[in-house]
Amino acid sequence: MSKRKPLIVVSNDDGITAKGLRVLVEVMQEIGEVLVVAPNSPQSGMGHAITIHSPLKIYKSEVFEGVEAYECSGTPADCIKLAKYYVLKGTPPDLVVSGVNHGSNTSISILYSGTMSAAIEGAIEGMPAIGFSLEDYGSNADFSHTKPYIKKIAEQALKTGLPKGTALNVNFPRKQSQEIQGIRICRQARAKWQEIFDERTDPYGRKYLWLAGNFVNHDHGDDTDEWAVNNNYVSVVPCVFDLTAHHAIPLLNDEWEIL
Amino acid sequence: MSKRKPLIVVSNDDGITAKGLRVLVEVMQEIGEVLVVAPNSPQSGMGHAITIHSPLKIYKSEVFEGVEAYECSGTPADCIKLAKYYVLKGTPPDLVVSGVNHGSNTSISILYSGTMSAAIEGAIEGMPAIGFSLEDYGSNADFSHTKPYIKKIAEQALKTGLPKGTALNVNFPRKQSQEIQGIRICRQARAKWQEIFDERTDPYGRKYLWLAGNFVNHDHGDDTDEWAVNNNYVSVVPCVFDLTAHHAIPLLNDEWEIL
Repeated sequence: MSKRKPLIVVSNDDGITAKGLRVLVEVMQEIGEVLVVAPNSPQSGMGHAITIHSPLKIYKSEVFEGVEAYECSGTPADCIKLAKYYVLKGTPPDLVVSGVNHGSNTSISILYSGTMSAAIEGAIEGMPAIGFSLEDYGSNADFSHTKPYIKKIAEQALKTGLPKGTALNVNFPRKQSQEIQGIRICRQARAKWQEIFDERTDPYGRKYLWLAGNFVNHDHGDDTDEWAVNNNYVSVVPCVFDLTAHHAIPLLNDEWEIL
Repeated sequence: MSKRKPLIVVSNDDGITAKGLRVLVEVMQEIGEVLVVAPNSPQSGMGHAITIHSPLKIYKSEVFEGVEAYECSGTPADCIKLAKYYVLKGTPPDLVVSGVNHGSNTSISILYSGTMSAAIEGAIEGMPAIGFSLEDYGSNADFSHTKPYIKKIAEQALKTGLPKGTALNVNFPRKQSQEIQGIRICRQARAKWQEIFDERTDPYGRKYLWLAGNFVNHDHGDDTDEWAVNNNYVSVVPCVFDLTAHHAIPLLNDEWEIL
């Protein structure tokens, strides 16, 4: 008896022509039936933005031979909404994957990440969802070492499902001479960007700024995503979309005099 | 002995000319010294987007008499980074407030909210931070009932601080004939937007879509932000920026065969 192949929606934030998306599509074709809905332009740093003040355009794309694909004018979160509610007319796919991002999305970067917003949007819609990122920003980055791990992780998620209300944030170390050491389930490192604004003057004499910054990690735990990637492991962080600080509710109920 | 007045950074996502921002500035002037850094255009639905692919512009604004204010071309999260690292040259303010948003940011809307991204950015930077939103999208919404509560909540946060690593998501019911019933510490309701794409044709015969949707809440708890606002209470949800699903780590460590 042959089982129906799983339906897998693929998106990203680097845009439909990114190498990382092609890598992800290739791996997903080995596992199931693939539907691509991806932005028509780079959307890095878009966080969980959605398009509500302007209309969206969506076109069929022939970028991937033999794969149903659409490019759209919106954000990664828009892409997942479009995939489920417009292309699939409400039918949920079996899996949502996003990436492979050109650049790390460990630690606090998850909040700014378009890649992860697509995955989290998938989780909000009740679908198993995974964002994949590689610690290499190069447009021609080497993804070869990530492919067997992407396949294993996606197959595992299809087989056992994911805990309700969670998405996975998967980060790969950049390609090294040493082989990857394995997969570790991690927590988000408590680190942040220390910003620097690079001030310049345009040809018309007006000031403008570039947002730049240094990543500062004071988290010494060896159970973090940063530790794993820095030690040549694949990090897997299960993520919530319920942002409630549940532990803080009794504290405020106790301390606040204005209740 | 006179104490130094607290320094309060004020931002929003509806832009520097929004009525809700003016309301927030007025209340904060009663409490401390105010610095405004706000977007020069509406940024609703921007989530935690930051500007990394284009430069930022920031100009002094005379919108608020007697208040140091800047308008910038970026997102709400950019505004907080600019306030701390550019205008204040690294000195953290005593409090960051954002809003008052024209429209509710309860439940899942926190993820899409520019208002809350400014507050969460403040929390990432280690400052007490609060986002305020009103369940009324009108550009001329009535904020009069929110002012005493905004003052109480901001003063409480300045007095007792907030639990480390949290920001507050405060939502007000729209103005009603009945007075507000009080303040409740809540959790984020488990609800979501059921999307509808409204399909139209432009004057050139090309299709375009508007993202629309219905808010669907199946969460029957009376401890949620949705319940509170619907019952004429002010809801206060403490929020994390560590998105780790900590409870899911042992589950994955137990279930996954590929580790």
